Amino acid sequence: MPADAPAAGKLWGGRFTGALDPIMTQYNESIYFDRVFYAQDIRGSIAYARANTHNGILTAHEFAEIERGFHVVLKEWQDGTFEIQPGVDEDIHTANERRLGEVIGKAIAGKLHTGRSRNDQVATDMRLWLRDQLDKLEEYLVDFLKVIAARAEKEVEHVMPGYTHLQRAQPIRWSHWMLMYGSFFAADLQRLRELRVRVNKCPLGCGALAGNPFNIDRDAIAKELGFDGIIMNSLAGVADRDFVVETMQWGSMLMMHMSRWAEDLIIYSTGEFCFVKLADAYSTGSSLMPQKKNPDSLELLRGKSGRAFGQMTGLMMTVKGIPSTYNKDLQESVEPMLDHVKTVGDSLQIATGVLSTLAIQPKNMLKSLTPDMLATDLADYLVRKGVPFRETHHISGQVVALAEKEGTPMDQLSFEQLQGVDKRFERNVLEVFDYQKSVEMRSAKGGTSRSAVMEQIEAVKRALAGEV
Amino acid sequence: MPADAPAAGKLWGGRFTGALDPIMTQYNESIYFDRVFYAQDIRGSIAYARANTHNGILTAHEFAEIERGFHVVLKEWQDGTFEIQPGVDEDIHTANERRLGEVIGKAIAGKLHTGRSRNDQVATDMRLWLRDQLDKLEEYLVDFLKVIAARAEKEVEHVMPGYTHLQRAQPIRWSHWMLMYGSFFAADLQRLRELRVRVNKCPLGCGALAGNPFNIDRDAIAKELGFDGIIMNSLAGVADRDFVVETMQWGSMLMMHMSRWAEDLIIYSTGEFCFVKLADAYSTGSSLMPQKKNPDSLELLRGKSGRAFGQMTGLMMTVKGIPSTYNKDLQESVEPMLDHVKTVGDSLQIATGVLSTLAIQPKNMLKSLTPDMLATDLADYLVRKGVPFRETHHISGQVVALAEKEGTPMDQLSFEQLQGVDKRFERNVLEVFDYQKSVEMRSAKGGTSRSAVMEQIEAVKRALAGEV
Amino acid sequence: MPADAPAAGKLWGGRFTGALDPIMTQYNESIYFDRVFYAQDIRGSIAYARANTHNGILTAHEFAEIERGFHVVLKEWQDGTFEIQPGVDEDIHTANERRLGEVIGKAIAGKLHTGRSRNDQVATDMRLWLRDQLDKLEEYLVDFLKVIAARAEKEVEHVMPGYTHLQRAQPIRWSHWMLMYGSFFAADLQRLRELRVRVNKCPLGCGALAGNPFNIDRDAIAKELGFDGIIMNSLAGVADRDFVVETMQWGSMLMMHMSRWAEDLIIYSTGEFCFVKLADAYSTGSSLMPQKKNPDSLELLRGKSGRAFGQMTGLMMTVKGIPSTYNKDLQESVEPMLDHVKTVGDSLQIATGVLSTLAIQPKNMLKSLTPDMLATDLADYLVRKGVPFRETHHISGQVVALAEKEGTPMDQLSFEQLQGVDKRFERNVLEVFDYQKSVEMRSAKGGTSRSAVMEQIEAVKRALAGEV
Amino acid sequence: MPADAPAAGKLWGGRFTGALDPIMTQYNESIYFDRVFYAQDIRGSIAYARANTHNGILTAHEFAEIERGFHVVLKEWQDGTFEIQPGVDEDIHTANERRLGEVIGKAIAGKLHTGRSRNDQVATDMRLWLRDQLDKLEEYLVDFLKVIAARAEKEVEHVMPGYTHLQRAQPIRWSHWMLMYGSFFAADLQRLRELRVRVNKCPLGCGALAGNPFNIDRDAIAKELGFDGIIMNSLAGVADRDFVVETMQWGSMLMMHMSRWAEDLIIYSTGEFCFVKLADAYSTGSSLMPQKKNPDSLELLRGKSGRAFGQMTGLMMTVKGIPSTYNKDLQESVEPMLDHVKTVGDSLQIATGVLSTLAIQPKNMLKSLTPDMLATDLADYLVRKGVPFRETHHISGQVVALAEKEGTPMDQLSFEQLQGVDKRFERNVLEVFDYQKSVEMRSAKGGTSRSAVMEQIEAVKRALAGEV
Repeated sequence: MPADAPAAGKLWGGRFTGALDPIMTQYNESIYFDRVFYAQDIRGSIAYARANTHNGILTAHEFAEIERGFHVVLKEWQDGTFEIQPGVDEDIHTANERRLGEVIGKAIAGKLHTGRSRNDQVATDMRLWLRDQLDKLEEYLVDFLKVIAARAEKEVEHVMPGYTHLQRAQPIRWSHWMLMYGSFFAADLQRLRELRVRVNKCPLGCGALAGNPFNIDRDAIAKELGFDGIIMNSLAGVADRDFVVETMQWGSMLMMHMSRWAEDLIIYSTGEFCFVKLADAYSTGSSLMPQKKNPDSLELLRGKSGRAFGQMTGLMMTVKGIPSTYNKDLQESVEPMLDHVKTVGDSLQIATGVLSTLAIQPKNMLKSLTPDMLATDLADYLVRKGVPFRETHHISGQVVALAEKEGTPMDQLSFEQLQGVDKRFERNVLEVFDYQKSVEMRSAKGGTSRSAVMEQIEAVKRALAGEV
Repeated sequence: MPADAPAAGKLWGGRFTGALDPIMTQYNESIYFDRVFYAQDIRGSIAYARANTHNGILTAHEFAEIERGFHVVLKEWQDGTFEIQPGVDEDIHTANERRLGEVIGKAIAGKLHTGRSRNDQVATDMRLWLRDQLDKLEEYLVDFLKVIAARAEKEVEHVMPGYTHLQRAQPIRWSHWMLMYGSFFAADLQRLRELRVRVNKCPLGCGALAGNPFNIDRDAIAKELGFDGIIMNSLAGVADRDFVVETMQWGSMLMMHMSRWAEDLIIYSTGEFCFVKLADAYSTGSSLMPQKKNPDSLELLRGKSGRAFGQMTGLMMTVKGIPSTYNKDLQESVEPMLDHVKTVGDSLQIATGVLSTLAIQPKNMLKSLTPDMLATDLADYLVRKGVPFRETHHISGQVVALAEKEGTPMDQLSFEQLQGVDKRFERNVLEVFDYQKSVEMRSAKGGTSRSAVMEQIEAVKRALAGEV
Repeated sequence: MPADAPAAGKLWGGRFTGALDPIMTQYNESIYFDRVFYAQDIRGSIAYARANTHNGILTAHEFAEIERGFHVVLKEWQDGTFEIQPGVDEDIHTANERRLGEVIGKAIAGKLHTGRSRNDQVATDMRLWLRDQLDKLEEYLVDFLKVIAARAEKEVEHVMPGYTHLQRAQPIRWSHWMLMYGSFFAADLQRLRELRVRVNKCPLGCGALAGNPFNIDRDAIAKELGFDGIIMNSLAGVADRDFVVETMQWGSMLMMHMSRWAEDLIIYSTGEFCFVKLADAYSTGSSLMPQKKNPDSLELLRGKSGRAFGQMTGLMMTVKGIPSTYNKDLQESVEPMLDHVKTVGDSLQIATGVLSTLAIQPKNMLKSLTPDMLATDLADYLVRKGVPFRETHHISGQVVALAEKEGTPMDQLSFEQLQGVDKRFERNVLEVFDYQKSVEMRSAKGGTSRSAVMEQIEAVKRALAGEV
Repeated sequence: MPADAPAAGKLWGGRFTGALDPIMTQYNESIYFDRVFYAQDIRGSIAYARANTHNGILTAHEFAEIERGFHVVLKEWQDGTFEIQPGVDEDIHTANERRLGEVIGKAIAGKLHTGRSRNDQVATDMRLWLRDQLDKLEEYLVDFLKVIAARAEKEVEHVMPGYTHLQRAQPIRWSHWMLMYGSFFAADLQRLRELRVRVNKCPLGCGALAGNPFNIDRDAIAKELGFDGIIMNSLAGVADRDFVVETMQWGSMLMMHMSRWAEDLIIYSTGEFCFVKLADAYSTGSSLMPQKKNPDSLELLRGKSGRAFGQMTGLMMTVKGIPSTYNKDLQESVEPMLDHVKTVGDSLQIATGVLSTLAIQPKNMLKSLTPDMLATDLADYLVRKGVPFRETHHISGQVVALAEKEGTPMDQLSFEQLQGVDKRFERNVLEVFDYQKSVEMRSAKGGTSRSAVMEQIEAVKRALAGEV
């Protein structure tokens, strides 16, 4: 064999006369990451062979041999005894078929790939794998939402400052804060369920691009593999990595929520706020500063949001820049998909752990409330007396300014001082300065009163049940 | 008034003692882009006032005045006579309320904003506006899909080379190519319909963050404004720009499809391929080279895909980097949303125009087909005689190599030459070399045979009807 | 003229027989944004015409007429009297040449474009414009750095908590904090100066793509226009928008720094931290909550970081997805460039204003310091007695734990309690608990001692002078 | 040991009382990727220990022991015998120090980390590693540019169609095309050299954030480690991952060039263009279609451009979203950096291999030239007779239209037909229709004439030598 001959066993064997450059071999091959699809690849091949039995390509015996052989190969993967042949098994498809041939002989194994291409095969493997992973992600997300709902129910009495612009704005319930994220993550759950339907479509039987010439029953294959239907255009079947892009759009939006959630908690766990304390399990110390306890788990959640986003943007750039059908660029969808799914899945579990073990500091929450956060309530007091809101807003602003000028907390201004600002203040105005009352006033739907919060918990539970 | 006093009329009037820097004023104000929401802002305010009538904040007379006044203001906007007061009308909410006060007097107008904040108001305006825009985008997308389906039906007989890796692969129908994009855009349509439900939720009544203290009937407001329901957590109501992010994720995926479609057509309209000719209406010439006719429309479609994507990534970065509830950063969601929607809408119309007027060159398509594109059919010939595919693939590869070596097109090799490669070739092997036959062989679902293509057209039509 | 005839006056006039669709006209034309280049376009045309005089294309008289005519056109732009002809003046190049022809007659004006293409013309306009804008941005950046340096020098005595993981870590000087950003922005300045050289290269004379056939003196043109040299390959001259991409990479990194700076200050201006107070000029109030004073300027700085980033990613996706030389996709580089430069420029000015007018609250900074922030100093105390750091770190950790357990601030533990942890503590250990001493200890280069900070101020000044 | 006790040996040992969750351990630890820095970590530690000898923290003996011990540890890594202790060695710093303690005893090893933090340590490791990698990337880039220059020189005679808008525009030299990319990649080289200076700054001695309290000589450390200087602000030293961001901005711009280059070659290697043939070593076949030869190498180059870009955007989002100094989010900079550098390095080598072995098909290039590509030359012919270009452009357009109408190639129109369009055409007009003459006419700098191309080759060579 001349020095520049191709490595034996390459699928396209018969034609090439030059050798591959070793960097190119490594640049090109995918076996070191796509072997994760070994079970999906085998499952898909068996379904494909079964369908090829019904149209006469394979005999019953041949199919039985293929099925038997693949069970051997599957077991090798599961036992960790499958030996990848470097430089030969360039991808999982090649590896599985090569090994099948060794187990059952090439005469039958060589019939497996009839009418099929790696183009439809890899798309099938990826979709099967991703569909199952999405189901796991759904479980993790449901768990997280359950913790949110349970904790919100249990700790509904605690009041804390609500912030806009990170400035103290109005008192809210701690549970109300948790349920804001419940609302975001429930939308993620809804989107996930919609997305799964589009991921779970079968491309097998699309061939290289133009379709299958042996009248294979694609619906039967799809059914055997648990798909929700088939990709209805064979060119699309091999061209499409939208199912990965959409998953990553979904995942990076979820991680965006996670980042905001983590950011809130990082701020709430500073020495200055001190509303929450992370469990030691989710904190780490400093190699230099003995007193430090850092919210590493939250920072990683926040940081990995960038990672998940980068995978999405990277793949979108890749897919955007290619013409139709299969182009090798699409191989670049696999590694980011694997890491994206792992990142989102781990993050959901970490977040669940963090929230489950977080200690809240209700006293510090209360201590951080300040009377001027009731300035709107003060304005509302006058509204109830018929004064136009714009005027009450101005009056309340004057009270705030007076308190600031006098260096007196607003709730300790005397009745006379208040009347000095506006004669319409009556004695009962002092009742305004009550944080519990303030939160209970906001009882319209979505608000921070106890009943409104309880209603929101029910909404999260309905979302879990898919009744949105 | 001292030099550093605040401009009169700022909503928060009573408190500030320093002046705004002119660059800051301009950096901060949004009126020059959010005035596009003038009608939504008015519509929302009327619904809000009506609800505040039922809970006793406003009398029937006050409400009537507000409604009357807003009709005046609305008309001014529609007639182009509304005069924005620079430096005073910092946003559309301020502008509308300022003008309402001039029309009906501040005593009543000053009651409008009771219990409301610009935080819930702007979110309402944006969602109302976007919901209506999504309906327009749906129309454009449906139109485009109808052109694809109609054209695919009418031109089903034309055969062209199908490409993978941009290399000639197998013959396909021209309609099959169009329907690949039909499949992508039909998925976009499905996603759009799902997305609309999440956009079309009402945040009005969330207040600044903590909810409404006057027990306003949020469901009634939502119903009057045509929303599909309310945002169930008031903090989420003001914090959420996911509806914009999700729209942009949708839009940038659609534009990614558009870019691939345009890329295909740009290549097909080169002098070397010459499969299609753009109508003059969608081409432009060169200022230097008299012979040029450039596919500018397609290049802009491809280029604007980046623009749409950049808007999505920019907003995601912005939202990712903030803590919960409203932060002023969120103002940065408005301009990209406006431009994104315009970009996608224009692009859909341009694409529809391009496809409606495109002239195909069926002869050039045929001329570009080469016999070696039937090498798989040749392998399949032997498969039908029971030879394992792996072997037939190798044999067919040898035939390709022989043709190349002899400088003879594969379909003009003699029967003897073919038998020289493999004895199992019989006389009828020559029938393989027929492009029409090749496409008709691929009759499994999704394939390129006439019946399979017709089935795909039906699938697109079902997608339009929402029966997916 | 038939209904579908082209609009008269289009540059490529002679050939088209179909009409443009109105949406396409608007989709295609750039005059509404590229008119900002009117002066650069005229300046470039004059330089080009002068060079075409030296090679005999134009006579001295013709050149004089062209120069005279352009001065008229320029004045019209400057006076706001230039009338764009909708649907005819599709871009600034067409508009200027059309108007020149009206002023000096088409016989001479028709010679202007000889050997030139809009491809090299637009690249020249953009580079001229951007070069001048970069000079403005440099001024703004230098101003900002000067404020940082001046303020750091003036306020060097103030000590505040330094944070890692947003947890109190060690005491630092307030000036040290400011100079961290001084270090980041000084690197931005260095990058800007390097970038300018690459932007400031002349593409004029590249023609449509293949070069100039009249032996034009490109070096002379470049010199007249103040360029640092020419683009050495004519294909690259028209293909290249890297100068915009690189500017946006620079700008989005600068804005990333701005976002971190703003984030720090937003946190420092919360009620809980309260280290700084923004001037009213850079804050705004709430339409609902009278007491609010929000750091809108900082939030916009932080939010616009996403906008700047989105422009960069969008353009990169666009440029990535095209083959070589000029493609119409590149038109999509103009609008983002204009907005990017404005965003960065405004942001630098806002940041300078914010920092110039910010009031610090040194008492609150001190109040936020806690004795456990000296735990490392306590460990270092033992290090100086020869105890291995790993051991001292552990011992100091025990002291922290003891203080926590006892509910006693670490600096109020008795000498006996300290000795109970480790016998090697001597009486002078109590001197460790001194924040001023702690900061002064960190006197190695880059540290937080007064002298180290002063050295850093000098470094910023050297960076301004380009001596890095 | 109770079930919830911390794993022994964690650096912050003394304080935690809860256990880590196993997912958190894995989520948090970096040893499985940062071990790649083992040599840098050791080298930095030795330099740090040496500096701590000069200021009295360590004795000469202690330093000698540390140095000896680290040589043992280094050898273990090099020999592949270093045993990572799962769950204990969470990062490379911990692992190296743990092992050092086993080799030389904890009494001395425990002094190593004095005044140092993992914050400055990891930044040092990363910068050392990256600096060396950038030097390798420079080599690969220089090699690629040398192949471009050499090939451009050798194959200067070949003429091909030049394209704008992917439409045939004007004839150019093949070398001119290669040198366009030479120009882009030479700019990448210039940027790389500027970038290296900013990467190559030493953060060691910054401590956790506030600086070093033992007056360590940071300049000496920097010198020993081959740095170009120190980071002048200790907070910046630990906060800064700009050196990674900037590397990725550089790398993703380079990959953007690579993608355009690959896109051109993919198009040029289609059956329809057929200007180039890839070596078998850089192509692959199809598992289904025996005749296929796919440009996988080029497609991967194009696809990996997205990957490199995604890493950049992901990290920018992460860094953008954090406050100052060190936050754990920054750990997310390591893995993308490692992969980014590998992706760019591999891609440069693949591109060099592709270009070195590419076979050009000059006959096909010539065959693709069409007479109408000389329409500008025809216009220029009249320009030389004094006809204004705008008029000649119109006349030439009429000739193009006539040729199209008559179905005659433009260069085969009779002299009479040409005169029928414009009387100023003389007999010698027919000399215009000569592609070689056309390219030679474009002799102004940057053009496609032989001399202009040769000058461009010299420019690339000067760029390699740093004389730009």
